[in-house]
Amino acid sequence: MREQLLATERIIPLEWKQGVLRLLDQRLLPLQQRWLECRDAAQTAAAIRDMVVRGAPAIGIAAAYGVVLAARQHGSKSLASWRDLLAGDMQLLAASRPTAVNLFWALERMQQVLDNSSGDTCPLSELEATAQAIHQADREANLAMAQLGMEIIRRHCDAPQHLLTHCNAGALATGGFGTALGVIRAAHLAGLVAHVHADETRPWLQGSRLTAWELACDGVPVSVNADSAAAHLMREGDITWVIVGADRITANGDVANKIGTYQLAVLARFHDVRLMVVAPSSTIDMQLASGADIPIEQRSADELLQVGGQPVTTQLPAFNPVFDVTPASLVDVIVTELGVVEQPDAAKMRQLMQTGVLH
Amino acid sequence: MREQLLATERIIPLEWKQGVLRLLDQRLLPLQQRWLECRDAAQTAAAIRDMVVRGAPAIGIAAAYGVVLAARQHGSKSLASWRDLLAGDMQLLAASRPTAVNLFWALERMQQVLDNSSGDTCPLSELEATAQAIHQADREANLAMAQLGMEIIRRHCDAPQHLLTHCNAGALATGGFGTALGVIRAAHLAGLVAHVHADETRPWLQGSRLTAWELACDGVPVSVNADSAAAHLMREGDITWVIVGADRITANGDVANKIGTYQLAVLARFHDVRLMVVAPSSTIDMQLASGADIPIEQRSADELLQVGGQPVTTQLPAFNPVFDVTPASLVDVIVTELGVVEQPDAAKMRQLMQTGVLH
Repeated sequence: MREQLLATERIIPLEWKQGVLRLLDQRLLPLQQRWLECRDAAQTAAAIRDMVVRGAPAIGIAAAYGVVLAARQHGSKSLASWRDLLAGDMQLLAASRPTAVNLFWALERMQQVLDNSSGDTCPLSELEATAQAIHQADREANLAMAQLGMEIIRRHCDAPQHLLTHCNAGALATGGFGTALGVIRAAHLAGLVAHVHADETRPWLQGSRLTAWELACDGVPVSVNADSAAAHLMREGDITWVIVGADRITANGDVANKIGTYQLAVLARFHDVRLMVVAPSSTIDMQLASGADIPIEQRSADELLQVGGQPVTTQLPAFNPVFDVTPASLVDVIVTELGVVEQPDAAKMRQLMQTGVLH
Repeated sequence: MREQLLATERIIPLEWKQGVLRLLDQRLLPLQQRWLECRDAAQTAAAIRDMVVRGAPAIGIAAAYGVVLAARQHGSKSLASWRDLLAGDMQLLAASRPTAVNLFWALERMQQVLDNSSGDTCPLSELEATAQAIHQADREANLAMAQLGMEIIRRHCDAPQHLLTHCNAGALATGGFGTALGVIRAAHLAGLVAHVHADETRPWLQGSRLTAWELACDGVPVSVNADSAAAHLMREGDITWVIVGADRITANGDVANKIGTYQLAVLARFHDVRLMVVAPSSTIDMQLASGADIPIEQRSADELLQVGGQPVTTQLPAFNPVFDVTPASLVDVIVTELGVVEQPDAAKMRQLMQTGVLH
């Protein structure tokens, strides 16, 4: 399966090339494929904030490279100066988006390199190696999760089936292959996919712009639907699984993900459809007891009142939380690269993070 | 309350003026306010199909005037000829949209006038009087329902509260005042509204373009949210009622309405929020036993893949059912001008249609 997945790779969301972070601008996809180059931390933080790059794992990787860019810019200065300048840039990166924990996890990994370096000179090559290791590990995690998730689908039903996904937890959201879409890709290769329904995912249309495009590029049968058609599809469309990614999973198994995930979870339970959450262990935040503690990003009203920069209505108040929290009780299974947790709770999450709960 | 509502009337979706049907073009609202004039049945049918006019009651009224336009065009011809030509135009009007029953109800009312006229000449003035009576009766029905619905809200809670609505069941969808928004307007006048949350209602954005605009024009506190934020709002936002219109209600109390209504009904039940459906008796189709028999209109994929005529993604398959069916078991109350049905079922619906179940 690993080799089969590797052979299908077509979409790469970010590259580290000759000391420049290149990002495929996701604001323009799929109608335009344009690369944006980041040469310092401020550019990287702006790219994360403005959603040139998005998706929890991809944000973490981009932030790690942002630290490398900062280190190169400031590292030749005197000791006190470069440490302060680097700390300032890392704060800038940390402030770019609040909900996905992978960002903070990646910055902490980079901070550890700095903490372990007591010398006068900035450990530039170690920082670069760590960012590349984070990037590569994310790709490997996705390959592992794809296999694990596919096997769970097959265990429940060995025939081609209808799947529903929300937002984009694909190659574009990660270092490659995707989390939820990695599982869907593997399931497709294993003959388990009759059709994928992609919620269009307002307001940013990650579903119709990114997910459906990614899957169509791979020849996976897919169609777009309005987010509000999900329950109708569950009742009429023989959907067996809702499969999504995550931006943060707390110690008790609560899941923050794109706005609309919580309501899909409620609807899935009502219709006897299973919910699978696919996320690398870097998404798990054991410091937070439950989802009630997760900061939920509110973005501009314009995301709802404009499309493609053009207003669709008059200037009205809008409420635009872009994430919500699904309680663990509505999650059937969390798939990570460390292993799989069914009917998650605090004890199982602790066991996963300590030893892995391999299937 | 009736006088208070009449005093607030600002938005008129359609007018019959000097033998011309004038429609406020709802494809362009609220950024442009342009009137489209229909002078024959073909123009009227096209305006219904293309959603210049939309909303079940407004479609019925427009179709009735479309028959008057057809009668004027063909009525001076010889008997056999005008009856055939008129029948053809009425078929054209009937084929314009399949789900809302008010269209067929209005055409049947007009057909009765024709059936009762045995003379050689087309009963043009009777047809015009009937269309105007349908129009006026719809306005009166909305005023009556506004009062009935408001009283139900007040019975459950006499304090200002948060309401959620979907699509546009407002003045723009009716002969005036609106069904669901009529109730919300009356509740606002009665001091029962702290805030109205309007689902933006993809793909056509009736919520952000029409509902939020209508309510803001009236000074009702309103904000737009993504359809997928509804459950999050129900959990976090103290919503007491979901209030919607209907396109067809069957003999057992099942409700066809804008896609997304069914999932709101499921989510409302999960969160102990009540669901109120507001629709005139012309929306009730006692000929259909249950919602399973209602034809569900599928519209073009372009409605999802384009916004304002501009593509937002590549040409991908899309699934675009624009209505869904909410089973009666998930409806707390149906408000009609004949009376109110709580926990609807076939026996109560029959009683309503025979005698009215006044509160």
